[in-house]
Amino acid sequence: MNSADIAIIGTGPAGISAAVTSVLRGKSVLLFGSADISQKVSRAERIMNYTGLPDISGKELAAALQKHLDSMDIKVTRDRITNVYDMGQRFALQGASSQMYEAAALIMAVGAAVSKPYPGEKELLGMGVSYCATCDAPLHKGKNTAVIADSPEEEGEVRYLASVCENVLYFPLYKDKPDFSENNIKVLADIPREIVSKSLSERTLVTDRGEYDVSCVFILRRAIAADTLLPQLSAVDGHITVDRLMRTNVKGCFACGDITGRPYQYIKAAGEGNIAALSAVEFLMKEG
Amino acid sequence: MNSADIAIIGTGPAGISAAVTSVLRGKSVLLFGSADISQKVSRAERIMNYTGLPDISGKELAAALQKHLDSMDIKVTRDRITNVYDMGQRFALQGASSQMYEAAALIMAVGAAVSKPYPGEKELLGMGVSYCATCDAPLHKGKNTAVIADSPEEEGEVRYLASVCENVLYFPLYKDKPDFSENNIKVLADIPREIVSKSLSERTLVTDRGEYDVSCVFILRRAIAADTLLPQLSAVDGHITVDRLMRTNVKGCFACGDITGRPYQYIKAAGEGNIAALSAVEFLMKEG
Repeated sequence: MNSADIAIIGTGPAGISAAVTSVLRGKSVLLFGSADISQKVSRAERIMNYTGLPDISGKELAAALQKHLDSMDIKVTRDRITNVYDMGQRFALQGASSQMYEAAALIMAVGAAVSKPYPGEKELLGMGVSYCATCDAPLHKGKNTAVIADSPEEEGEVRYLASVCENVLYFPLYKDKPDFSENNIKVLADIPREIVSKSLSERTLVTDRGEYDVSCVFILRRAIAADTLLPQLSAVDGHITVDRLMRTNVKGCFACGDITGRPYQYIKAAGEGNIAALSAVEFLMKEG
Repeated sequence: MNSADIAIIGTGPAGISAAVTSVLRGKSVLLFGSADISQKVSRAERIMNYTGLPDISGKELAAALQKHLDSMDIKVTRDRITNVYDMGQRFALQGASSQMYEAAALIMAVGAAVSKPYPGEKELLGMGVSYCATCDAPLHKGKNTAVIADSPEEEGEVRYLASVCENVLYFPLYKDKPDFSENNIKVLADIPREIVSKSLSERTLVTDRGEYDVSCVFILRRAIAADTLLPQLSAVDGHITVDRLMRTNVKGCFACGDITGRPYQYIKAAGEGNIAALSAVEFLMKEG
């Protein structure tokens, strides 16, 4: 299914809560997330204040959330959304798999932005900066590219790029820097600082150690900040601005969970997911 | 214990969530509620969207909430709070048992106001209108009084008043009107409409069938609207006005759950209780 009433990005407690209530209210959903539900939840040691589930481990909470999805036959679409387009009546979502999706309402539950965008990143997005290797690699065939990634899960993308591009400069932001058998991948320990545009066809990645001219800088993050996904969204300090009904400034787009601001708490996120879903349902009733 | 860092009124999901997080953050709490946790929760047939507890009965949710309190050794104080006074640095709370309590911060989690106050009720409160028979009966010794109640649980109060007053007119708002052996209790089926002040020493209860002059009108509700408990609170259509951090317009007073407005949903209430608790904790840190 590539089309639904409501698209929900994120499978933490906020996104799952939003999905459960949306489906309960008879709406079809596309719920985008990862296989392990939420790394943040799963890695939590003990959770003492998820009201009604006293003193549980992160793994247990993740299992309870998965069980809730299973009990209502709600499937997670395992694709990383790299861009969202507001088409007026519908939202179009670009997956890292290169698949496109669409929905009449959108709920952003992507979690707290892990890192701020680099200077130049948002301005050059789509013009030599990309979040999706699968989608954009063909545009840079035979050229030099750079990849910044925050997780070893992206190493497959790096290999894929190497199969298409002349050379790939890889800037892993995690420990345990990888080795590649491909000799056109160069792993660097630099810390990226900025992306600048010196010429029409090249971008320059500025790091703490130097400057690299490439055809494209791929930035692969587990979570993309919601206001980077959909730049029209109002945000303050990386938190999407919402009202008490979880409405953003973009019509038909709602947000919930850590992305809306502190406190970063699981039960708060679940509560907001519920509100966002009901607001989306109400929006669909009025618009439909 | 009659004093605590944080007083929490209400033992629905909002109040319990607030209590759990407050205690987790090292604060002492006074949690006011009823023996059965929350009648509204217990009576719910099926709850499908309390995220993490798929498809449970109201009784099961009430049991899960009680278990959470038990696991942290949080006791419920079974007293009905009838008035709250903002003393500047502290809040004083009047219980129906006539016990007084105090706390440095206050969280209102009293649920949606079941009924609107009668015209005249708020204006005459403390002047011939009372929410607490135990507290105020002695003031009306040998006089005629009226009692309006929404639950059979209040019949004991009616009997107590009859032992002190000349006559008691009883207006039960529930089905199964009671019989009393006391012959100075008269049970009436009238629907109360208004309370007016015709003389200095008497109040007139106006009903759909007539007018009754009494020394005092006792109004005994399971839930008293938060803005009746603490009249300075800003409210719109019976919902306390809060910001996203659950702060009310009264310094040190927070609100969460149905009382803050729709949607009336358990997981939303639990999420808000968590936020209210963390805001109260932050308030205490700054003030302390």
